[in-house]
Amino acid sequence: MKTFPLNAWYAAAYDVEVKAALLARTLCNQKIVMFRRKDASVAALEDACWHRLLPLSKGRLHEDQITCGYHGLVFNGDGRCTHMPSQETLNPAACVRAFPVIEKHRFIWVWPGDPALADPALVPDLHWNDDPAWAGDGKLITVKCDYRLVLDNLMDLTHETYVHGSSIGQIAVAEAPFVATHGNRTASVTRWMEGIDAPPFWAGQLKHATGHEGKVDRWQIIRFEAPCTIAIDVGVAPAGSGAPTGDRSKGVNGYVLNTITPETDKTCHYFWAFARNYCLGEQRLTHELREGVSTIFREDELILEAQQQAIDDRPGHRFYNLNIDAGSMWARKLIDKMIAAEAPAAPRPAVIPLRAA
Amino acid sequence: MKTFPLNAWYAAAYDVEVKAALLARTLCNQKIVMFRRKDASVAALEDACWHRLLPLSKGRLHEDQITCGYHGLVFNGDGRCTHMPSQETLNPAACVRAFPVIEKHRFIWVWPGDPALADPALVPDLHWNDDPAWAGDGKLITVKCDYRLVLDNLMDLTHETYVHGSSIGQIAVAEAPFVATHGNRTASVTRWMEGIDAPPFWAGQLKHATGHEGKVDRWQIIRFEAPCTIAIDVGVAPAGSGAPTGDRSKGVNGYVLNTITPETDKTCHYFWAFARNYCLGEQRLTHELREGVSTIFREDELILEAQQQAIDDRPGHRFYNLNIDAGSMWARKLIDKMIAAEAPAAPRPAVIPLRAA
Amino acid sequence: MKTFPLNAWYAAAYDVEVKAALLARTLCNQKIVMFRRKDASVAALEDACWHRLLPLSKGRLHEDQITCGYHGLVFNGDGRCTHMPSQETLNPAACVRAFPVIEKHRFIWVWPGDPALADPALVPDLHWNDDPAWAGDGKLITVKCDYRLVLDNLMDLTHETYVHGSSIGQIAVAEAPFVATHGNRTASVTRWMEGIDAPPFWAGQLKHATGHEGKVDRWQIIRFEAPCTIAIDVGVAPAGSGAPTGDRSKGVNGYVLNTITPETDKTCHYFWAFARNYCLGEQRLTHELREGVSTIFREDELILEAQQQAIDDRPGHRFYNLNIDAGSMWARKLIDKMIAAEAPAAPRPAVIPLRAA
Repeated sequence: MKTFPLNAWYAAAYDVEVKAALLARTLCNQKIVMFRRKDASVAALEDACWHRLLPLSKGRLHEDQITCGYHGLVFNGDGRCTHMPSQETLNPAACVRAFPVIEKHRFIWVWPGDPALADPALVPDLHWNDDPAWAGDGKLITVKCDYRLVLDNLMDLTHETYVHGSSIGQIAVAEAPFVATHGNRTASVTRWMEGIDAPPFWAGQLKHATGHEGKVDRWQIIRFEAPCTIAIDVGVAPAGSGAPTGDRSKGVNGYVLNTITPETDKTCHYFWAFARNYCLGEQRLTHELREGVSTIFREDELILEAQQQAIDDRPGHRFYNLNIDAGSMWARKLIDKMIAAEAPAAPRPAVIPLRAA
Repeated sequence: MKTFPLNAWYAAAYDVEVKAALLARTLCNQKIVMFRRKDASVAALEDACWHRLLPLSKGRLHEDQITCGYHGLVFNGDGRCTHMPSQETLNPAACVRAFPVIEKHRFIWVWPGDPALADPALVPDLHWNDDPAWAGDGKLITVKCDYRLVLDNLMDLTHETYVHGSSIGQIAVAEAPFVATHGNRTASVTRWMEGIDAPPFWAGQLKHATGHEGKVDRWQIIRFEAPCTIAIDVGVAPAGSGAPTGDRSKGVNGYVLNTITPETDKTCHYFWAFARNYCLGEQRLTHELREGVSTIFREDELILEAQQQAIDDRPGHRFYNLNIDAGSMWARKLIDKMIAAEAPAAPRPAVIPLRAA
Repeated sequence: MKTFPLNAWYAAAYDVEVKAALLARTLCNQKIVMFRRKDASVAALEDACWHRLLPLSKGRLHEDQITCGYHGLVFNGDGRCTHMPSQETLNPAACVRAFPVIEKHRFIWVWPGDPALADPALVPDLHWNDDPAWAGDGKLITVKCDYRLVLDNLMDLTHETYVHGSSIGQIAVAEAPFVATHGNRTASVTRWMEGIDAPPFWAGQLKHATGHEGKVDRWQIIRFEAPCTIAIDVGVAPAGSGAPTGDRSKGVNGYVLNTITPETDKTCHYFWAFARNYCLGEQRLTHELREGVSTIFREDELILEAQQQAIDDRPGHRFYNLNIDAGSMWARKLIDKMIAAEAPAAPRPAVIPLRAA
C-alpha cells in the first residue's frame, strides 16, 4: 500500500537552506541533492552517480555542475553527464534524474512524480509566509512517523487540551462543537469558542497587542490542501466584538502554516511557520513566537513517534473513529483518491469470446 | 513456534514498583500499563488507547482512571472507556484489555492468557520472599535472551565453577553427582557435596553466622515450577554435622528465588531475590548480599546474551545434551507441554460420509 | 548469490595480533577464535562451544587448549573435546570445526572451505611485506562494505584524482592511458605517466631519497590475485632516466600491499601495508608513511561506505561500466569463476527414455 501520491509538489527545503552548495535530503523515499545556480534557480537531482552510485552530494559544486567525488564524472543541473574520465565520447544515456522545482512562499517545492504533470498552479497556498501584511518565521523538524499522523494531529485540535495544556490547550477546545466541510482537494474544520477565558498563550498575545484582558471569542479554522498542507487560521478577539460575524478588527490573528513532506513511509519532514497580523515590526516577538511554537511542536513530536511505534506493533490494525475525526477522515480520503489515481490500470480479464455456431 | 504459554501467572513487577502512577512494561510480547488504585489493588491494562493507540502510560492517572495523553479518552481500571471528547454517547465496545492481577510473595503477578483460567492457586511458591522467618531482598534485571536460557542456566549449577569462580564456584560443583526428578509441573535437581572446602562466599557466611571454619557439607536443591520459576535451596553446614540426613541446625541456609518473565521472545525480565535464615536482623548483611548476588548475576547476564547471539546466528541449530542437562531438559519438556495444551485443536479432516446404496 | 569463494586463503590477522590468548574474528560469515600454541603455530577454531554455543573466545586458554567459559568443556587446537563436566566418556563427535592455517608474509591465513583443497602454494604473493630488501608497515581497518567494492577501488586509480587530491591524486592519473591484461587467477592494469609533475606525496619521497626535483616519470602497476589480494607497484623516477624501459635505479619504488577479507557479505577486513626500497633504515620514515597512507585509506573508507549504502538502497541495480573499469571487471570475472566452481552441480533433468516400439 502506497502512503503518498507522487504527482504533487512537496516542500523540500526552506528557501534559505539552499545555497551554492550541495544539500542532500530524502523526499518520498527518494534521495535528492539540491543546489542553487548562479542565476538563483534551484536544481534537484537524484543523489547517486550514474556510474557507481556514490551520492553526488559527496562531490563538489563548480560552475553550476557537480563533479562526482569518486571518479570525477560531471553532471549539470539538468542531470546530464558532461564529462567522463579517460573517455572521449560520452554515453548519451549517462544522466541522473532531475526533478521539477519551484520556489514559492519561502519553500523549495519538488515534484517527485511525472514531470509532464508538474503544474505550477498546484503549489499549495501558504502565501502568508511571505506576505508583507504578515510577519513570522518557522522551522523544519524531522519526525519519525508517517506524515499522515501529523495531518491527523492538525485536523483535530482537541488534542491541544491534553498535549498542550500549558499553552494553547483548554477544555473548551475539546468541548466546543465544530463544522467539517470538504471540496475536491481541500477539507476544512471550523470551531468557534465564544465568551471563554483565553488560554495562556492567546491571553498574552491579545493583551500585548491591544491591552484587552477578559473574556474572548476564539477561533480555529483548519484548511487542508491535499496531499499534505494545512493552514490554520487562529486567533482571539474580545468577547462580543464581532469576530464570529466577520469583524476581527479588535482581535489578534495568526496563521499556523504546516506542510509535511514524507521522507520515507515512516518518517517525515515537518515544515511549519507561524505568521501574525499584529505588531509586525517587533523582531523580538517573531523570535519569541518561533521558539514558543517550537516547544509546542516538540510536545506533538513525542506523541506522534509513540503512536507510530504502537502502530508498528500492530500490523493490520484498523482504527475506530470518533466525531472529532471527521476532518482527518476527509483528509485521508482525498489522499487515497490521489494515490488511487496513480495506480496502474488493472489488467482486463482475458475473455474468451463465444460465437454463435 | 511459541516460546512460552500464555495461561500462567507471570511476575510483572516487584510490589514496591507499582504505586499510584503509571508503570509501563512489556510481558509476553504484550505492552501493559499498571497502576495501584486507592484501595491498594493493582490494575493492569493493555498499554494502547482504543482510539489512536497512543500508549496509555503516556497519559495521566486521576481517581483510579487513566486519561489518554492525546485526545482525552478516559479508561477505568477494568479497561472500560468512561469519557470521550465531543461525544455524548460512548461506544459500548470502547474498551482496552484488562488483565487478571494478583499480588503475592512480594511480586505483582499478571495472567496474559484466558482470564477464565486465572486460578490464584497457580501462583508459584516463592513464600520465602515475605516470610518473617527469612530475610532478604532482590532486584530486577532485563536480559537480552530467551527466558529459557536463564532456566537452563539455573537448572545446572555446573556453570558456577566456570562463570562464578571467584564467589560460589568450585570444582566440586562440576564433579559431584546429582539426582534429577520431576512431577507434573515441577522438576528438581539435588546435589550434595560432602566434606569439602567451602567456596569463598559460603565460607564467609558460615563463619559470620556460626564461627565455624573448616570442611563443610554443601547442598544445592533446585526446584523448577513451570513455566518460569526456580527456587534454589542452598547452604553449607559443618562437615558431618548431619545436614545430609536432615539436621541443618549447625549450618546456614539460603534460598535463591528466581522468576523469569518473557518480555519478548528474545528478552526477559529476571526477578530474583536471596533470602536467608540466619542473622535476620542485620540490615547491613541484607544490603551486602543483595549487591554481592547482583554481581554474580551480572556474570551470568554476559554469558546469556552471548549465547543468545550465537543461537541467532544459527537458525535451526539442535543442541547436544550432556548428563548435566537432565534438569533443564525436564524444565523444557514441562514448558512445551503447557504450550502444546494451548494450541488450537487441529481441524478434523473433512469426511465424506459413505452410505450404503 | 554468494559474494566470495570459500576455497581460498584469507588473511585473518597480522602476525603480531595472534598471541597466547584468544582472538575472536569473523571471516566469510564464520566466527572463529584463534590462538598461538607454545610451539608458535596458530590454531583457528569455530568460535562456538559444541554443547551450548557460547563463543569459545569467552573462555580461557590453558596449555594450548580452550576451556569453555560456561560449563567447562575443553577443546584442543584441532577442535576435539578433551574434557566434559560430570561425564566419564566423551562423545567422540564432540568437536568444533578447525580451519587450516598458514603464517606467511606477515599474515595469518585461514582457509574457510574444504580442508582437502588447502594448498599452501595458493597463498597470495605479498612477499615484499617481509623481504629485507624492502621496509614498511601496515594496518587493518574494518570497512562497512562488500570486499569487492574495495577491489574495484584499487583496480582503477582514477579515483586518486578526486578522492586523494591533496596527496597522490593528480589529473594525469585520470587522463593517462593504461593497459589491462589478465591471466587465469590474476589481472593487471599498467599506467605510465611520463614527463609530469609529481604529486605532493611522490615529490617529497623522491627529493628525500635522491635530492631530485622536477619532472618525473610515474608508474602504477596493479596486480590482482583472485579472490582478494592486490599488490600495486608504484613509484617515480626523474623524467627520461629510463624507468619506462626498465631502469628504475634513479627513482623511488613502493608497493601498496592489499588483501581484503570478507567479514560478512557487506563488511570486510582490509589489511594493507606500504613497503619501499629506499631509505630502509629510517624508522621515522616508516612511521610517517604508515600514518600518511592511513589518512589516504580513511578517505577511501568514507566513499566505500557511502557507495555500499547507495547499493543497498537499490536492490538489483546493474552498473554501467566505463573504460576505466576494465581492471575491476576482470577481477570480478575471476571471482565469479571461483564461486561458480564451488556451486553444487545442477541436478540433471529427469529423462523418460523413449523406446522404439
